[in-house]
Amino acid sequence: MTHYALTLEYDGTEFHGWQAQPGGVRTVAGVLGDALQKVTGERPRLAAAGRTDSGAHSLGQVVSFGLENGLPADRLMSACRAVLPPDVTVVAAREVDEAFHARFSARRRQYRYLVENRAARSALLRHRAWHVARPLDLGAMREATLGLLGRHDLAAFGSDPAGDNTVRHLQGLRVRRRATAGGAIYDFELTADAFLYGMVRRIVGFLVEVGLGLRSAGETAGILAQGNDARTGRVAPAHGLYQLRVEY
Amino acid sequence: MTHYALTLEYDGTEFHGWQAQPGGVRTVAGVLGDALQKVTGERPRLAAAGRTDSGAHSLGQVVSFGLENGLPADRLMSACRAVLPPDVTVVAAREVDEAFHARFSARRRQYRYLVENRAARSALLRHRAWHVARPLDLGAMREATLGLLGRHDLAAFGSDPAGDNTVRHLQGLRVRRRATAGGAIYDFELTADAFLYGMVRRIVGFLVEVGLGLRSAGETAGILAQGNDARTGRVAPAHGLYQLRVEY
Repeated sequence: MTHYALTLEYDGTEFHGWQAQPGGVRTVAGVLGDALQKVTGERPRLAAAGRTDSGAHSLGQVVSFGLENGLPADRLMSACRAVLPPDVTVVAAREVDEAFHARFSARRRQYRYLVENRAARSALLRHRAWHVARPLDLGAMREATLGLLGRHDLAAFGSDPAGDNTVRHLQGLRVRRRATAGGAIYDFELTADAFLYGMVRRIVGFLVEVGLGLRSAGETAGILAQGNDARTGRVAPAHGLYQLRVEY
Repeated sequence: MTHYALTLEYDGTEFHGWQAQPGGVRTVAGVLGDALQKVTGERPRLAAAGRTDSGAHSLGQVVSFGLENGLPADRLMSACRAVLPPDVTVVAAREVDEAFHARFSARRRQYRYLVENRAARSALLRHRAWHVARPLDLGAMREATLGLLGRHDLAAFGSDPAGDNTVRHLQGLRVRRRATAGGAIYDFELTADAFLYGMVRRIVGFLVEVGLGLRSAGETAGILAQGNDARTGRVAPAHGLYQLRVEY
């Protein structure tokens, strides 16, 4: 058996998330499984670096699997590109060791979250960014990031799908602002060893509440201390979320 | 009668361009006309700064018209936002003099064109950028822009919808490259007093041919001299084109 890792890009708008589900809803794992079956005649078990939510996007989802049909990774990639639907593509492919697992072998993951901040609702970015109408305070949001950086029990910001270890090391949390004609785009970039389920969307939801003046940066420590009792804040919608890259 | 100028943003993907057409195809002017009729009971004659092509986008289309119903511009804007479909929005609105005409009063216009340059076809940007698979030479493209800047007869790059004056003053033509995981995004920004029909798409088509090594930067002067006999080059597809802003 030959083992592969594919890197995928997809527009999550028309997908019910990553994970294949019974009942025929359209998922990224489902269309990739169909493509592999067309190309190789096999339908391998797929391991993904992250199970993206319905509507969330990816620029670098990594998927690992094994095939009896040991065709070269480059040929597998171009064949998959040709048969996958227009909203998914394969950006890279390589052969990997049998021990490689897209999720368990990952050492670092990076996500981006986009907020369109202006009075007018979105048109071009309506499936690409969270629209927030009232002006955000960049300084307050940046201040609030400081209390989140580092190794913390982040139960307040998400759950552990694999158990109940909610300690994660948030290595980077950068907020950038780019002025546009009628307002600004805020770009949140989060880097961690691993993410809890819902973590990016809950952290961004909290930061936006701080940016709107509904909560203060000083609340961060108290929220972390409350653990999952604090999990009542705003959750940023999935369509502003991008899985950026996974490092091994 | 009260006169207004609205600034629109739209995602051109599901539109057959700006201009209302007989036969019920969906156009931006058509949906704006429907919205104004719902809001005011009137269906004014619309003047647009630029008639964007089918599939092309806008971040700043300016539309002028007059209404008997003299409601404040702010209220007209929020009412239109509420009834327009999700792929169009109003980003600004103001009252203007009767003499103001979105097209004839414009002094300067700016367009952007995006190219996604990488081996893998696009997924997230499939309706937002022209996918070019082979690597582009930024230096060669920049060199080719030099011969286009300034006031020239640009008949080689487009036609004048209103007559046969094909002289235009290209005031800016900037090419920027942003590296991405698997390649790069090229961002072409063009500024002129006015644009010929097809001008941005033909200029970008030419620059991309230069970037691919199919033509050389030195051909620019010869192409300009040939006038519309030279209008045989590659035309960049509409879905990478963005009307950026119009100045008055």
